[in-house]
Amino acid sequence: MTQTAAIIGGGVIGGGWAARFLLSGWDVNIFDPDPEAERKIDEVLSNARHSLPSLFETDLPGEGRLSFASSLEAAVKGASWIQESVPERLALKQDLLVQVQAVCDSNAVLASSTSGFKPSQLQQHMNNPAQLIVAHPFNPVYLLPLVELVGDTPTIVRAKEILAKLGMFPLHVRKEIDAHIADRFLEAVWREALWLIKDGIATTSEIDDAIRYGFGLRWAQMGLVETYRVAGGEAGMKHFLAQFGPALKWPWTKLMDVPELTDDLIERIASQSDEQSGGYSIRQLERIRDDNLVGILRALKTRNWGAGKLLNQHDQRLQPERTALDNKPFVSVTRSIPIDWIDYNGHMNESRYGQIFSDAADAIMAHIGADQAYIDSGLSYFTVETRIRYLDETKPGERIYVNTQVLDAEGKKLKLLHEMHHLGGRLLATGEQMLIHVSLDTRRSCLPSASVLAKTEQLALAHSMLPRPDYLS
Amino acid sequence: MTQTAAIIGGGVIGGGWAARFLLSGWDVNIFDPDPEAERKIDEVLSNARHSLPSLFETDLPGEGRLSFASSLEAAVKGASWIQESVPERLALKQDLLVQVQAVCDSNAVLASSTSGFKPSQLQQHMNNPAQLIVAHPFNPVYLLPLVELVGDTPTIVRAKEILAKLGMFPLHVRKEIDAHIADRFLEAVWREALWLIKDGIATTSEIDDAIRYGFGLRWAQMGLVETYRVAGGEAGMKHFLAQFGPALKWPWTKLMDVPELTDDLIERIASQSDEQSGGYSIRQLERIRDDNLVGILRALKTRNWGAGKLLNQHDQRLQPERTALDNKPFVSVTRSIPIDWIDYNGHMNESRYGQIFSDAADAIMAHIGADQAYIDSGLSYFTVETRIRYLDETKPGERIYVNTQVLDAEGKKLKLLHEMHHLGGRLLATGEQMLIHVSLDTRRSCLPSASVLAKTEQLALAHSMLPRPDYLS
Repeated sequence: MTQTAAIIGGGVIGGGWAARFLLSGWDVNIFDPDPEAERKIDEVLSNARHSLPSLFETDLPGEGRLSFASSLEAAVKGASWIQESVPERLALKQDLLVQVQAVCDSNAVLASSTSGFKPSQLQQHMNNPAQLIVAHPFNPVYLLPLVELVGDTPTIVRAKEILAKLGMFPLHVRKEIDAHIADRFLEAVWREALWLIKDGIATTSEIDDAIRYGFGLRWAQMGLVETYRVAGGEAGMKHFLAQFGPALKWPWTKLMDVPELTDDLIERIASQSDEQSGGYSIRQLERIRDDNLVGILRALKTRNWGAGKLLNQHDQRLQPERTALDNKPFVSVTRSIPIDWIDYNGHMNESRYGQIFSDAADAIMAHIGADQAYIDSGLSYFTVETRIRYLDETKPGERIYVNTQVLDAEGKKLKLLHEMHHLGGRLLATGEQMLIHVSLDTRRSCLPSASVLAKTEQLALAHSMLPRPDYLS
Repeated sequence: MTQTAAIIGGGVIGGGWAARFLLSGWDVNIFDPDPEAERKIDEVLSNARHSLPSLFETDLPGEGRLSFASSLEAAVKGASWIQESVPERLALKQDLLVQVQAVCDSNAVLASSTSGFKPSQLQQHMNNPAQLIVAHPFNPVYLLPLVELVGDTPTIVRAKEILAKLGMFPLHVRKEIDAHIADRFLEAVWREALWLIKDGIATTSEIDDAIRYGFGLRWAQMGLVETYRVAGGEAGMKHFLAQFGPALKWPWTKLMDVPELTDDLIERIASQSDEQSGGYSIRQLERIRDDNLVGILRALKTRNWGAGKLLNQHDQRLQPERTALDNKPFVSVTRSIPIDWIDYNGHMNESRYGQIFSDAADAIMAHIGADQAYIDSGLSYFTVETRIRYLDETKPGERIYVNTQVLDAEGKKLKLLHEMHHLGGRLLATGEQMLIHVSLDTRRSCLPSASVLAKTEQLALAHSMLPRPDYLS
């Protein structure tokens, strides 16, 4: 049966919650007296519909029904999850939660998105305090999995089950504390940043760069302690703590109250770290960390953003001058096989051969003048058919090159043959590829520019002297 | 001409520097009296060779020559970059740097990897202090781009040029300060983490989870300030600061010295943030952030790690039961097209059609019992040939399904036809795929198990009733 969530407060956080529930098949009732609420929710939903389905290799359930309720009572009617995300003012939240509890199902999970208050503060005037928990999410709520849960265990157990079914990561915080866990870190960094800006040490963009080109990339995958465990090496976490310890007392920040690194505390940290990561050797963790970093960095490359933009610039720098020689095929790709192209059979996935041949066609396009500027002018080539023969396996890290031969170039048509070789010469795969020149405005075929056509025909003429393999279809 | 780098101190950091230089075509001389140095450097190099080339779409230059020098003098001879990475003890570094300067080329960049000391401290006894700069990298040095540079501008200008050519991101720190920039943040978070562990609020693994399932994913791409700019929404950075401001004074951490949020400081932060990100509207930044997050999360999915492992589990949960119906093709894939599969033509890249058909074949394999357990037992299918016809464009977010028909199943051979449709029914692409059953031990073809063979033949028989399209090759 379709379940219903009530979202009280429809800002960025409430909207994110609404999107999570709605796109997971829940019906969602929103209550927010703000006349702009509907527009705001719409904007968050449009972001969520754009991005959340991209995370999965199969369909999400059909969306639930979204309604805007005219009263608290109407919003929470029939709801098995009620999420409060109103502004961060204690009295406001306390009053509202009392009102909600008076009209909601007593079996519903009643949760607050508060980033700072403790459940005991929020529960103060409630008849049934145990119903109220903190469920603190992170922006954008429709993409980031973390939800910090604080409060009574029975309610949290039910909440965890529901959040897990939404694909989220519920983290049960052991003891209530101002700002839970993650916001304490954010707060510490934010204060440090304020000092750096105030003292003229760094600008906001330098601060961001110091994070996203460095430890931010590590934290996306391992967080703080496991990262240090790897950095500490085979000597182990205790050794690392002993080394790092003294620096804690140096005047590195203006915030100097530091817990004493007693033997007990060292023992506690080291044994917790063993329990967390001890299933892997440091060598294994290094490899895992590096493979993750490669994946994250390559993802940012595709977006041409941050550290990924830097890598694309370096690609440009590394790119050899590709010249066409008469009576020789064109060397269109020279590269190694990245770790993230390997599938469960331990070799390069078949789709990546297609990617290499797609890149090979791009190199030919650049050579004949169908480069980025040409594409920006609204003209390009689309592939209409490929035939790939997989002759041998390709392993991670292996270096390969592709010889490309123009088989046919006539008006809008361009037919290419790619032969992918191991650096040592062994033939790994062949790709026949038919491309059609198109207008990116009409998305229909059209003739190339005179200059591109001339260069294409010239290359085709030169390649017509080359032998045509007898495996061609 | 090949350039030479001298690496003084061959631990994890020195080894990482050695790898960066060596894999970028520099000759590298290492000096480290530790008898284990050669083994340690070897281990770092093996990690770097495994991962660094994976970041690029073209070949790195050929590796330079690696030597272990028996003296400081021999190590720095002819070196145009000298990198000191010895333990973090001031007197040790000061003495060593004086010795190095006495024997090195006066035009060489002389750099220290120190994470805490200021250049003025390190330069104290040097004849030519301006030659020494801090070049503080981040572990793993062969993958993370950030290097904080502190010191005299002319030396830094030369250093930046060299580091950029290595594909790194040199960040010129405006004023010297203990621990530069990034380590101040790390230190602040580390202290906060020590308190949380000491007070029993969170274990090490809960701390790591609170980071890597939440803000760590944001920081990998945008850092701190730009993330808050987006969260603040259209109201702008000043409004965000006014909202966030009061919380700074709440008892959220034990480290309470906070700069006064004066009008001047607010103005400075807001205008720096405008300069940094003002080229994009908040809507644009949200879209950029979300697309980056999708890319990072999908990368972690491929590695089945952290937030990516969680997503894979959710895929399992979402996966529909795929049943074969007589006289109907098998519905092998139902999904939407993720953002990161789109190329410069604004549509799904041709290689991703291959990926979808590869996934479709996986679904058939699972159906006939060639599932993960079967693969783990050492048997699988490899694709030996595909032919793909691209009939229409596929756009981001579009939902598609694939009908798969077994064309032929005889012994080791399995021939599939995939037809990929838009959710509305429109045919987008067809894929003919020939697979061969293999042993993963011998990597040669062999017969499937009796049970897999029986199920394959049964499916082929049912599908033999279906019409065979006339476009088949």
